[in-house]
Amino acid sequence: MLQQLEITLRPYSRGFHLITNEVLSQVNLTGIDTGLIHVFIKHTSASITINENADPTVRTDFESHFNASVPENAPYYQHTYEGPDDMPAHLKASTLGCSVTIPITNGQLNLGTWQGIYLGEHRDHGGSRKLVITIYS
Amino acid sequence: MLQQLEITLRPYSRGFHLITNEVLSQVNLTGIDTGLIHVFIKHTSASITINENADPTVRTDFESHFNASVPENAPYYQHTYEGPDDMPAHLKASTLGCSVTIPITNGQLNLGTWQGIYLGEHRDHGGSRKLVITIYS
Amino acid sequence: MLQQLEITLRPYSRGFHLITNEVLSQVNLTGIDTGLIHVFIKHTSASITINENADPTVRTDFESHFNASVPENAPYYQHTYEGPDDMPAHLKASTLGCSVTIPITNGQLNLGTWQGIYLGEHRDHGGSRKLVITIYS
Repeated sequence: MLQQLEITLRPYSRGFHLITNEVLSQVNLTGIDTGLIHVFIKHTSASITINENADPTVRTDFESHFNASVPENAPYYQHTYEGPDDMPAHLKASTLGCSVTIPITNGQLNLGTWQGIYLGEHRDHGGSRKLVITIYS
Repeated sequence: MLQQLEITLRPYSRGFHLITNEVLSQVNLTGIDTGLIHVFIKHTSASITINENADPTVRTDFESHFNASVPENAPYYQHTYEGPDDMPAHLKASTLGCSVTIPITNGQLNLGTWQGIYLGEHRDHGGSRKLVITIYS
Repeated sequence: MLQQLEITLRPYSRGFHLITNEVLSQVNLTGIDTGLIHVFIKHTSASITINENADPTVRTDFESHFNASVPENAPYYQHTYEGPDDMPAHLKASTLGCSVTIPITNGQLNLGTWQGIYLGEHRDHGGSRKLVITIYS
């Protein structure tokens, strides 16, 4: 069985944000013994990844690291007309990825204890982002 | 329902290339109300990712960025006998990933307006690359 | 049809390790003409990726490259109380990813000749890692 829905996240500031609960509040996993959920972001300047769900400084350090490793204003950028945050946003989006697939077991996401779903918002003013969620069970 | 096929891309030069239409020309999504398509590359020196489909300088900037962040001839490389482009190609392949999964909705890829499928060809002379496409509906 | 199982890998040292056979020894793909296998790691400081299965120096070079590009003791890290290897481990995990999806064809993983499944163990003492394997056929 396949279920699919499109949801719109509230706008987030530039940086990494835990969105596990915002995603879970939109879907009903009750009764799904075994399945997979695919969370896909319909944008090229924001990303979806899984990481540590407890300490907010991990998310701050993600922002610092990716700003250091994917710099603004690199001398070789040609795609600069949408602002200095734009080309790095595209590069971060592909480095981190635009979707995650997570097992569902006994009506719940089968994440590890410390895992949560991150939105990587890589634009200064990215606005609301759209996700397509597909559940196979 | 599961459909699977293996396709061979035409050879591409080193760099990033939009292959959405080349993939779509090989599959028939008509009648698939809801589904997922998995595009998998059977190589370790090329990658599949999703990014901006309009401005070709984004793809040029991808090549520049990943050449800068995954250098040729790093002093610590031991796997050098296949040429200076080989070990960076392996590293880029895992950084970017070897597959994407995309929702299908109403007989079409449910991509965002600006999203397209990129082949990252990381070898100087990679030749034709093989993809396995699996559609679940 | 969906099958799912959770397996525990033996502990691995910090670095990159080929785990294709350890994964395959736990599943039975016989009789699956067409399918997909999803391999998911339930941790935020280890990763799953696909890369070259033959020359062990590729895996050594992976460790060298990611240590260089995701340094320990970066001056901007705030999440430092679990040791210098911890925050880089989180960053490597999201850069490389926590799962792979691989086509199954004629009862076998449909990998390219040179592809294998890597565990990226990014902690100095990561211990045993848990995987959730989901097979759709």
